[in-house]
Amino acid sequence: MQQVNLGMIGGGTVGSGVFHALELNGALMSSRIGVKVNVRKIAVKAFDEPRPYDIPRSLMTLDWQEVVNDPRVDVVTELVGGMGIARTMILAALKRGKPVITANKALLSEHGEELFATARKFGTNLYYEASVCGGIPIIKSLREGFVGNRITHLYGIVNGTCNYILTRMKLEGADFDAVLKDAQKQGYAETPPDLDIDGWDSQHKIGILASLAHGFWVDHRTIHVEGIRNITALDIQFANELGYTIKLLGIIKTIDDMRLTIDASKNKPTRKSNIVNRKSQVQVSVYPTLVPNTHVLASVNHVFNAVFVRGDVVGDTLFYGRGAGKDATASAVMSDLADAALDLKFGSKQRVPPFVPHERNGVVVPIDEVVSQYFVRLNVVDKPGVLAKIAEIFGTSHIGISSVIQPEGHEGESVPLIFMLHYATNGAVSKALVRIGRLPVVKGKPVMIRVEDFK
Amino acid sequence: MQQVNLGMIGGGTVGSGVFHALELNGALMSSRIGVKVNVRKIAVKAFDEPRPYDIPRSLMTLDWQEVVNDPRVDVVTELVGGMGIARTMILAALKRGKPVITANKALLSEHGEELFATARKFGTNLYYEASVCGGIPIIKSLREGFVGNRITHLYGIVNGTCNYILTRMKLEGADFDAVLKDAQKQGYAETPPDLDIDGWDSQHKIGILASLAHGFWVDHRTIHVEGIRNITALDIQFANELGYTIKLLGIIKTIDDMRLTIDASKNKPTRKSNIVNRKSQVQVSVYPTLVPNTHVLASVNHVFNAVFVRGDVVGDTLFYGRGAGKDATASAVMSDLADAALDLKFGSKQRVPPFVPHERNGVVVPIDEVVSQYFVRLNVVDKPGVLAKIAEIFGTSHIGISSVIQPEGHEGESVPLIFMLHYATNGAVSKALVRIGRLPVVKGKPVMIRVEDFK
Repeated sequence: MQQVNLGMIGGGTVGSGVFHALELNGALMSSRIGVKVNVRKIAVKAFDEPRPYDIPRSLMTLDWQEVVNDPRVDVVTELVGGMGIARTMILAALKRGKPVITANKALLSEHGEELFATARKFGTNLYYEASVCGGIPIIKSLREGFVGNRITHLYGIVNGTCNYILTRMKLEGADFDAVLKDAQKQGYAETPPDLDIDGWDSQHKIGILASLAHGFWVDHRTIHVEGIRNITALDIQFANELGYTIKLLGIIKTIDDMRLTIDASKNKPTRKSNIVNRKSQVQVSVYPTLVPNTHVLASVNHVFNAVFVRGDVVGDTLFYGRGAGKDATASAVMSDLADAALDLKFGSKQRVPPFVPHERNGVVVPIDEVVSQYFVRLNVVDKPGVLAKIAEIFGTSHIGISSVIQPEGHEGESVPLIFMLHYATNGAVSKALVRIGRLPVVKGKPVMIRVEDFK
Repeated sequence: MQQVNLGMIGGGTVGSGVFHALELNGALMSSRIGVKVNVRKIAVKAFDEPRPYDIPRSLMTLDWQEVVNDPRVDVVTELVGGMGIARTMILAALKRGKPVITANKALLSEHGEELFATARKFGTNLYYEASVCGGIPIIKSLREGFVGNRITHLYGIVNGTCNYILTRMKLEGADFDAVLKDAQKQGYAETPPDLDIDGWDSQHKIGILASLAHGFWVDHRTIHVEGIRNITALDIQFANELGYTIKLLGIIKTIDDMRLTIDASKNKPTRKSNIVNRKSQVQVSVYPTLVPNTHVLASVNHVFNAVFVRGDVVGDTLFYGRGAGKDATASAVMSDLADAALDLKFGSKQRVPPFVPHERNGVVVPIDEVVSQYFVRLNVVDKPGVLAKIAEIFGTSHIGISSVIQPEGHEGESVPLIFMLHYATNGAVSKALVRIGRLPVVKGKPVMIRVEDFK
């Protein structure tokens, strides 16, 4: 049987997870693909760093260059993470023509194009299934399974920490801060938690998926991001009363000319006929979203991830699994390793290149021009005429109100007032909310959460 | 750009769907994979047979051999279906070394091993993503995405017709016959409907998935099958009261020694330590199943399919999408076509062979030895002592009762009596039910539906 020698950089949580998976199922994988994978060397930060699975001392080295430079190493995994030395490590391996497998979404987001160009130049490949939703083969499915589709819509719950926090807030009626603290104690959230809860991790992942779906490399800086830090128990409760669950969604949507033509009579966006040779316009954003309780994404709970994909041929699909953790990530690395081993066996190292710009020379539409529906929660003084004043501002902004909830209160006291708004641009709603926020009867900053009907 | 010429056999619903998808997205696919696919010829049954999408007269021929024999045809699709001529067509193309793409699950079930051996012998490949759950890239995910996993559990809703009928029965409280008739009128069920509603179509698909997961080709005749014909509105109603939804599930489960060691004290199957060099034992069956309403499979409604996969590394995953229909199937054929085109481009026609026997030299365990939990519905005469008599039979058969529902009735009348049973072998429960069915107070045949807790 053909042999492939693996050199690993990174022997911490993920790295030792991959090593363990290979110990467990390496022989099974070999019998499936007809190539035997041998682990030759593993570069670690320290021999005795804490790791969930043991690595034999004889395989470890403290010098990552030993791994890259070893002429007997055919494939390299970079499982160090972060934006520093990882880039140098990957580039060094690619420049030696060695295929690299990585889970490093942050690095791909920032330096993807450089890495892809280097792989191309040196006739090798970069595999990164583990960078987005480890337990879900979403990159393979988008690139290969749905290769015959235009991806018109993609909605992803791609951050397990946020989904865990939002799930517990809903189930327990608890506040954000309390759940976050407990999540940190239990190891479901990092300290500091910003990368996850402020949406940056989701931004990296959604940028990668948007690029693969739409064929132009999406600069992550163009992706509008809002995290879950400001979601309150009250929002979750009112959303539920209206039949919705709040999820942090990454949203990738072809919008054509939708943003230009809201048909006010129907309160529905309508599409103009296609204009040829125009750049395709895509919404790419990450924000908390009201998802109808009847939609399957509303039932994705705790640390699980899910990606809902609509293709113009295949229709609606959903993929569900663990997003992170040593084992789910190891499963994705094993998949890449099998592909890399087969590509070495058949001399087809560039069979499915890391990124192929294709056809759709698109642009990410600024959030202000994106059309959404909205849940708005205000804190108002309960006195006559308040509703009329607010409704007037929505009216003069041409924003339709689809429903209002005003829980019974006591005159003169401060009470919540909830609006559900029809389709309108984010820009128009933001402006209207600034004006509403300035009304003396409105206390505090208006809360706005977008609503998705998946139509 | 490299060119690949496609010859198609079958230009009906699926065939014209594939042709249409290529018209729509062929250029996009080419720009993604770097290979242009040209349709050279399409063999049809009749030039004017009814088809959902038009095919130009100039591409059509009535002679399938023209397609296979055309030296300019590099890849062949067989989208004729059925067990007759399709086999001859596929063998003819394979014998000319041409890769074949098929959606023919019945043929694969019956003649898979012959087709795979022929592909191997003639140095070519057979692709069949479209044969199981067209809209879900489940074959690619099992073989490539989860290549580093042992698949310990797989539960599939793989027949859209059955799921559509069961969904409507539940939503409308309607009877099987009425819903079936309406489904036939609306084109969601065939006439005659037997292949779907009696579970044979699910059997074919589950056999293919079981083979890929466990590495030995599963003879479909060893798969225990029960369809949905005998499910009544009453069963659905009582299941719902107990917190369950009835779904037709294909079930593939590694059972090790579970069947031998039911720990009666805990009413839980326990596993013996692994015995080396023993054939792995697998449950492979298709039957209506009570699924907890909280489980994601319970929310898969109408014609949608879903496959729940548990891998020993990746954990729990779910794939959801349309199972059949011209477009979902076309999406899967396009995916295979891209793989075939890349394999031709890189000279790696046997990169991922159609079936690789691997490691697990297993056997399908007879249904009588499989351990399940059960919902049992009896129709009994309401008089004193009835419950005791029935409970005694379960007791002497060592079958634990976890709950009983006896709706209030009138003495002397016939009333339903529902039992939920703990883990027991199917053989023991069948035997007990035969004895119970013979009691004079029990009217009609006892109804038994298995319960799955996904543990």
